[in-house]
Parts: sequence; C-alpha cells; structure tokens
Amino acid sequence: MPRQDAPSPNGLTYADSGVDIDAGDKAAQLILRHLRRTQGQRVIPNPGGFAGLFRLDYNEQLFKRNYKDPVLVACTDGVGTKVKLAAQLDIHDTVGIDLVAMSVNDMLVQGAEPLLFLDYIGVHNVDPTHIERIVKGVADGCEQAGCALLGGETAEMPAVYAPGDYDLAGFAIGVVELARAIDPLRVEPGDIVLALASSGVHSNGYSLVRKIVKSKRLKLDKTYPELDEQKTLGKVLLEPTRIYARSIVSLQRAYKVKKVISGMAHITGGGLAANLARALPPKTDAVLQRTWAVPPVFTFLQERGAIDPAEMDRVFNMGVGYCLIVRPTFADSIASKLRKHGETVWTIGKIVRGRGRIRWSP
Amino acid sequence: MPRQDAPSPNGLTYADSGVDIDAGDKAAQLILRHLRRTQGQRVIPNPGGFAGLFRLDYNEQLFKRNYKDPVLVACTDGVGTKVKLAAQLDIHDTVGIDLVAMSVNDMLVQGAEPLLFLDYIGVHNVDPTHIERIVKGVADGCEQAGCALLGGETAEMPAVYAPGDYDLAGFAIGVVELARAIDPLRVEPGDIVLALASSGVHSNGYSLVRKIVKSKRLKLDKTYPELDEQKTLGKVLLEPTRIYARSIVSLQRAYKVKKVISGMAHITGGGLAANLARALPPKTDAVLQRTWAVPPVFTFLQERGAIDPAEMDRVFNMGVGYCLIVRPTFADSIASKLRKHGETVWTIGKIVRGRGRIRWSP
Repeated sequence: MPRQDAPSPNGLTYADSGVDIDAGDKAAQLILRHLRRTQGQRVIPNPGGFAGLFRLDYNEQLFKRNYKDPVLVACTDGVGTKVKLAAQLDIHDTVGIDLVAMSVNDMLVQGAEPLLFLDYIGVHNVDPTHIERIVKGVADGCEQAGCALLGGETAEMPAVYAPGDYDLAGFAIGVVELARAIDPLRVEPGDIVLALASSGVHSNGYSLVRKIVKSKRLKLDKTYPELDEQKTLGKVLLEPTRIYARSIVSLQRAYKVKKVISGMAHITGGGLAANLARALPPKTDAVLQRTWAVPPVFTFLQERGAIDPAEMDRVFNMGVGYCLIVRPTFADSIASKLRKHGETVWTIGKIVRGRGRIRWSP
Repeated sequence: MPRQDAPSPNGLTYADSGVDIDAGDKAAQLILRHLRRTQGQRVIPNPGGFAGLFRLDYNEQLFKRNYKDPVLVACTDGVGTKVKLAAQLDIHDTVGIDLVAMSVNDMLVQGAEPLLFLDYIGVHNVDPTHIERIVKGVADGCEQAGCALLGGETAEMPAVYAPGDYDLAGFAIGVVELARAIDPLRVEPGDIVLALASSGVHSNGYSLVRKIVKSKRLKLDKTYPELDEQKTLGKVLLEPTRIYARSIVSLQRAYKVKKVISGMAHITGGGLAANLARALPPKTDAVLQRTWAVPPVFTFLQERGAIDPAEMDRVFNMGVGYCLIVRPTFADSIASKLRKHGETVWTIGKIVRGRGRIRWSP
C-alpha cells in the first residue's frame, strides 16, 4: 500500500521499502478501545505519550497504602507455533488470550497479582483489522487476568516474516508483598499436590501438533468423533490457554495471614513432572498418581501420531495446567474454594522426603 | 539436532518437529552470567523460578522508603529490520543494545528511572552461542541504562523464522514518583529546545536503509571515504543506538526540587518533527533551526538513494536522538551538565504560542 506522500522523482521512499505508516496509524486507532476496556483507575491517561503509566500505590482508601515492601514480578513469553496454526485457520482473535496466559500463569506461581501487560506483534504487513483481531484477544486475556493492557508495539517487517506469518511476544508485570511471596523452601513432607484442569493443549507442543497433523494428513476443518462431535480439529487445537489468575489471586486473598500454599507450578514445556519439580526444595520428592482425566485431544494426538507415552508427558500438559502444593489440613477447603471459582481440581499426590524428584505411584 | 531420548519406533518426537530442548538449556546456561552482571541488590535471586523478582522499595537506608507514590512506566519495542542487517553481517552482539535503547529512551521521556528489562528472541533454531551473543548485547545495553536484565525468553520457531533470521522484542519497566512525572502541559512559551546527538541511524528506517543498499548495490564490507575512512558501511549502519539513561536520570537527580525540564522526546520513527510534536501542548509551537551537525551517514544515504530531504526528515533522526524542552533560565546549566555526562548538545529552538506544531525557522 503506497503512502499518500509523493516520492521524489528518482528516489526511494519509506513506502517503497514496504513499510506502511498509515496502516500502522489506522491499526493504533482500532486497538485503542480494546486497551481502554482493560484499564482501570490505576492507569494514568497518557495520550500520544512514549510509555504506559501505571500507578502502583493507588489509594483505594484515604491513607491506605497497598504495599509495604512491593516486589515487582516480571514475565515474558510467546505462544510458540500456535500462531502458525492460527494463521493456517485464519482465526486470530484467541491467540492473544494464550499470550496473556503464558506470562500471567507464570507470575501467579510467585504469589503475584497481575498488574499490567504489553504485547509485541511482529508481522509481514500491517492489515489494521488483522492487528485489531489479535489485540482483541490480548485484551480479552487481560480482562480474564484482571490486568491492564497498558500498551504494545506492532512491527511491520516484511523482510523477516513471510506473508500471513506473525509472531507474538507478551510481557507481564505483577506485584507481591515481600512477606507474602511464595518461597519454594516452604514445601515440606506431608503437603498435598492439587492439580487444576487445563483447557486443552494450551500453548506448548505445537510444533509436534502441527507435525502430527501434517504427516498423518489430519484435516483441521473436519470433526473427529473421538475428539469432539461439534468442534473441528482446528478449533479444538486452537482452544485458548486457561488463565488461572482470578482463582489463584482470590485464593490468596482468602488466606491473608495463614501461609497455606507452599508452592505452585504452571505446567508448560517439559510437562507436569519437569515443571512441578521446579517447585520442590532439594530434600523432597512429589509422589504422584494419575488420578485426573486426560482430555480426548491428547489421546487423539498420541494415537494418531503414534507418540511414545513418555514423550507425550514431556511435551504436553496432558490435562493439568497448573499445580498447587498445599498444607494438608487446608487441602480440602482450598480445593473447594478453587472449584467455586470454576476450576476442576484433582488431588494428584503428596510431598515426601526425597531428592527434588517426581515419582509416579501406580 | 536430535535429542538424546529415543523416539518410539514408528512415532514422532518433539525433536522430529524441529525443536531442540537441549540447545535451549545450553543457551540458558550461557546467558546466565550476562544477566547476573546487570543485577544489583534489588533483584531477588529466584533460580529455576517462573518469573523475575525485583524489589521496588529496596531500603538503601534503614527506614528510608524510595517512593511515596510510585508510578510504573512500561515500554515495549523492537529494533525493526536492523536485525536483518545484523544477520547479513553476522554481527549479533550489538542489536541487543539497540533493543534496550528503544524502550529505555522512550521511558526516560516520562521522567522515569529504568529498573528492569526483559527480552524476547524469536529464532529459526537455537544456536546457544548465537543466542549468547544477542543476550550479551542486551546485557551491555542494560548496563548502559542502569537497569537489571531480569529475564527473557528464547522461542525456537523454525516454521515462522527462516534459517538465520530472528526477531527481538524488548520490555522495560521504570518508575517515577507521581509528583515528578513529566506532564506535557508543563511546556510553555519561552522554553528552550535542546537536542542531544544520536550515535547514527539508531533503530529506525532500516527497511529504507536496506532498500538503498540493495538497489544502489552498495557494499556492506567496503569503506566509503565520504562516510568513514576506517569503518565499513556495514559497521557504520550497525552502530548501536545511544542510550540516554545515565545523563537524563543524573540530570533529574540534580534538580530534585525545581521542575526545570518541561518535556522530552525520543526521536524515532517519524523523525524529529513528529516525535517532538508529541511533547507539545495544543497551544504551543516549537520553532526550530537546523543548528546541529548532520552526521555523514545521513548525507551518504540521501545522496546514494536520491531520497527527498523531507522524506529523510520523516524517516531518520538526522543526527538528533533525543530532545529536552527546558526552562530558559536553566538551559545553559542543563546543557553543561549533559555535556559533562558525555552528550553532544545543541540549542535548536524555542517554544512559542501556537497550535501544537513544529515550525522551521530559516
């Protein structure tokens, strides 16, 4: 798309080099309403400004300060090649939810409350309605996470991204009061491991997913009865990552004084074992049982791709998106509170003396 | 690169799909020392953790709190197709400086002190030493900016990035005391516009730069006498973006009580006029004179590419990387303080009554 400005007769212009500044401005206009619906009173309006402004100690009540010793918790992540699947299906308004989920679920593990989010979109060319669809998803994710979408960047890079291709990077900041931050050393023998259901494949393992789809000639626009009677395979695979922010933040507010949560884990690349192990102090093991329901999508991928079960466990969440390690006397009431917030919860194991490993009990 | 794990006889593994988890682990090890050299006492160690932790109100002195009403300032940006030039030249350890500069210089405009940075690298395949070179540059930039490189993400996406290609996204968080935040409404007639020299092309306009190089068959490995006797064209074009953090933060500390800075602007895409205009309240104009020295690289690009001068002004910084709008009685002492911090400073104009526009005085 040429710019309106007349180029010099024999010279090159910026538009000749493939960058469309007007489309960028149009996209910026379109996404504004999505940003605004995520922004509460703590966001300081800064139209045309160079940065987003977020008031940390917003006084909800006069003379009340929110944090005594605030620790900022920062996360960044992408959604891997789930963007490639979105591009193939031409459905772009949900990968933004995945983007928020990946960073926000990571920060919850530290006991943090998500505050703000920024997105980076690298793209072949800026189609304003396309960018708006992506950012709509990011804003939806921010609403689910209870954080402000404070800003973002769309970079038009025809030399790096092929037509139709794009990449997403997300960045989340949260805050935790120093004394309330989750310390892995709190985990001790006797603690119970609770598992929260994932919504599907989430945002890890999509290179393998796409490999299976391609090599086994699966059809993304077809429904497979063993998978879902209503949804196409594409829709099942694109199901957005569950964001655990509201239930985990509410849970922590319910136990303001007692430290009932010893540790947490967001189950991403590496699977349940590798990620839960990150929450274990060196002298403990987690002994787990497969008590949860593995969603049909994983059985389907395993069977169609003839994937080794151990490989499935290493690549996919297998139905568990988030884990909590909790004090045994509070396990039931914690599980019940999480269920009230819409989570599906299973007790999948307990902590014993050990060497920082995950063990499977038959 | 295949993983060590044996695949199932007829099945697919994650390694088959082109993702190398071991290389990712190796890269993570290599970059650790670069992160550490940027991290001061405000960073809370969190080995194996899911997020970076930064203590906002670190007590430098007992009972002293650093912020009364802290406002978080958040920025994100990439370096555009300067990454493509870096890939062509196979020089990867300076684009990280550009990445930090783009976000950090933006946040300085709000009066903020940079605190922490995170990077996202999307890449065709993870070559650990390649990733280390990129992150070395990011850490160098963070040292220059005085902020902690708190973490980052490397995403191996062979389906999105061509071999050798990558993209970078940077995220910076800073803080400003609410009462000290730069408010554009502070700018008033009589204020003086100071310009700080850029170090070269910085990180905007590289699609046009690359277009000129290609269409005019310029040689990146050659020296051009009118440009630089010592440096190849490639090296001149890859010169890292200047980071103004130390001088701007020092300047603000020197004037803790008096509000001597009315506004600031980071000169990026759109050039001097478009970016300085963002710092102007509606009822003022800035009247500017071309009193600064335009670096040879811009004259070279303009002549070789036969670019219209107005187009040059819209795309490139033309030698001015950052502007300050200051109270007239303090202009000289501010300029002198900035020079002591190594900046080249020109007085390029003043603020008059107007309509939020930039006017050029002959």
